[in-house]
Amino acid sequence: MVEVAQRLGGYGYFPATSGNLSIRESGETLHMRVSVSGIDKTRLTEGDLLLVDEHLQSTEQAARKPSAEAIVHVKLYQKSDAMCILHVHTLSNNLITLRYDARGSIPLSGNELLKALGHWEEDARVNVPLVENYSDLTKLATAVAAAYDPAVPGVLVKQHGIYVLGRSVAEALRHLEAFEFLFSLTLQRAALTPLATAE
Amino acid sequence: MVEVAQRLGGYGYFPATSGNLSIRESGETLHMRVSVSGIDKTRLTEGDLLLVDEHLQSTEQAARKPSAEAIVHVKLYQKSDAMCILHVHTLSNNLITLRYDARGSIPLSGNELLKALGHWEEDARVNVPLVENYSDLTKLATAVAAAYDPAVPGVLVKQHGIYVLGRSVAEALRHLEAFEFLFSLTLQRAALTPLATAE
Amino acid sequence: MVEVAQRLGGYGYFPATSGNLSIRESGETLHMRVSVSGIDKTRLTEGDLLLVDEHLQSTEQAARKPSAEAIVHVKLYQKSDAMCILHVHTLSNNLITLRYDARGSIPLSGNELLKALGHWEEDARVNVPLVENYSDLTKLATAVAAAYDPAVPGVLVKQHGIYVLGRSVAEALRHLEAFEFLFSLTLQRAALTPLATAE
Amino acid sequence: MVEVAQRLGGYGYFPATSGNLSIRESGETLHMRVSVSGIDKTRLTEGDLLLVDEHLQSTEQAARKPSAEAIVHVKLYQKSDAMCILHVHTLSNNLITLRYDARGSIPLSGNELLKALGHWEEDARVNVPLVENYSDLTKLATAVAAAYDPAVPGVLVKQHGIYVLGRSVAEALRHLEAFEFLFSLTLQRAALTPLATAE
Repeated sequence: MVEVAQRLGGYGYFPATSGNLSIRESGETLHMRVSVSGIDKTRLTEGDLLLVDEHLQSTEQAARKPSAEAIVHVKLYQKSDAMCILHVHTLSNNLITLRYDARGSIPLSGNELLKALGHWEEDARVNVPLVENYSDLTKLATAVAAAYDPAVPGVLVKQHGIYVLGRSVAEALRHLEAFEFLFSLTLQRAALTPLATAE
Repeated sequence: MVEVAQRLGGYGYFPATSGNLSIRESGETLHMRVSVSGIDKTRLTEGDLLLVDEHLQSTEQAARKPSAEAIVHVKLYQKSDAMCILHVHTLSNNLITLRYDARGSIPLSGNELLKALGHWEEDARVNVPLVENYSDLTKLATAVAAAYDPAVPGVLVKQHGIYVLGRSVAEALRHLEAFEFLFSLTLQRAALTPLATAE
Repeated sequence: MVEVAQRLGGYGYFPATSGNLSIRESGETLHMRVSVSGIDKTRLTEGDLLLVDEHLQSTEQAARKPSAEAIVHVKLYQKSDAMCILHVHTLSNNLITLRYDARGSIPLSGNELLKALGHWEEDARVNVPLVENYSDLTKLATAVAAAYDPAVPGVLVKQHGIYVLGRSVAEALRHLEAFEFLFSLTLQRAALTPLATAE
Repeated sequence: MVEVAQRLGGYGYFPATSGNLSIRESGETLHMRVSVSGIDKTRLTEGDLLLVDEHLQSTEQAARKPSAEAIVHVKLYQKSDAMCILHVHTLSNNLITLRYDARGSIPLSGNELLKALGHWEEDARVNVPLVENYSDLTKLATAVAAAYDPAVPGVLVKQHGIYVLGRSVAEALRHLEAFEFLFSLTLQRAALTPLATAE
């Protein structure tokens, strides 16, 4: 996870100490290791991942607090079989929410990289859910979990960023890179005029 | 090859574990070393290049499978004198297929970097073949090989990526960098208004 | 600070040896460590930060001069409780001054990253002051300090760059990254057409 | 110089083994160290800089040839007091030649970074010369040298790249970074609509 954080940091995916990450622990009750609040995720260390239960209580380090948005991770783990969740703010994942604001979801289709999102079927179509950016984080967490669709490993928040799920750290990373590629492609395609045959 | 993979990874040319690479072995029958399936090519090691014959059978490691698109490499080696093939997905090489979709090929001319594609003649003109993205990989491989033109060291696949050929790893890399530069230039030029003399 | 300079250098924020940085020393009278004139900030060392008083006199190294724009830092420290000031030229922070030239300030609202600028209130709105780029640096320093608003940790200069303030090096860096993200988002949003529901 | 080459390589300024660099040796007759032909400049070593005279003859290594465009460096050194010349192909320095093709030069004004080109005067205006891209390199060299203006440390070649001069390696690098910033700004500004006061 530390390596993935460095990689995402290198992409510029954690501007201004934003973003957060978690790994679910295996076991009967929900426990996760989640990045602590306020740190610069581009230089995350193992010690910056805090073990907490579903009430965000740490059994280890009372002195450090989990990221304020850890509640969103909890609600998503409760609704899915994800083992890893990555949350990042990028220009692409913010701009795409502005373009599809009125529609309420982002349609993706026609591109080879849909396979990286787990869609290998011919003519795959994916609708990425898009929710309001509530400043009340419990409300945000509830909205994100309600919008989550098991066929799509991510949920967008308007002018905020994306939560991406995976059954492993590697899968969550693959999903995130595919989403970012497809959002950028969709935005740049909108500005492009296809040529007629004769040109 | 491992070094080239790291470099292309550094450019962001392997989003979401996409892309694949191969080197043809010298010898009478076709053998190649090709990247194994599903791995993150940005951290390729020598051990991730699997030696296979033209039927994609490995004599060494039965436990690992070559990339699903290895069949495209085989068909291209059979039709060319290439010793290295690189396949990458980028925003530019996807967007250019959307702009020239109706035309069926991408015309490149007028730029100094055509020399890097082997075209040193005055007023060089190159047409990069563009094929449909068939989900049946044998069909895709046949289409890519049929479209391959010995005067142009690359074939584009719609909303998927490019296959680039070279008689060495270094040449394939040079071809790939030249294609990506020329695709980006062509796309950005389309959005640019040349000024009249007086302005 | 050396680490922050390397990081900003890695972002390309110091083109052509531009930019400068300072840290205020704690104490009763104003002293700061400021980058020396003319050096390449991407390879700043501790020795390139010169200790000067508010008259820009160095008590240590008479042979080296502080950055010509050090006077702007002095005037900003005199008007604020900042402990660190970063000044960089970027395409985004130059283009945003061209777009909002007539308005005289840059309005920012609606995005999650306003929190990184210290604005956690619902419907936060921030106006980043914008001043003329006077070639007389004392005049520029006076204008920048006069425009400084304690609610906004930065001041833009037309076709020049931004001065960003923080109560620590880490806070100044967070403010800078948030400004650059929001300027880029604002510029790219201007070129984007939101879709109606039905599309 | 090796360090500068790595840095420019890191910026992506040497796509497809393009570009070349030289340092003039001090002495009565013209001698320079220039990058050898065909190599990947992103991994230049000291041994890749070949000492040649003004007839491009090497006294050291008969086996290696200087870059084919070394003749352009010779002609520029003969007309200037430059001690270093950098030549790179970038998207920005190619696109700017397409936008100003009819005008025959690129006007730069109004930006703080003109200082990095040596223009500290109020309302500085610089016209960067633009020449045709002749495939005959002696003809190209003559045209570039004829267009060179001592007040502007660079000459552009249409759909090819820029030759940048400096009295030291560091100065040439500063000039190059300033040109690239100003070309990008000019191109992006052209796509931007300034807002009226009331907006």
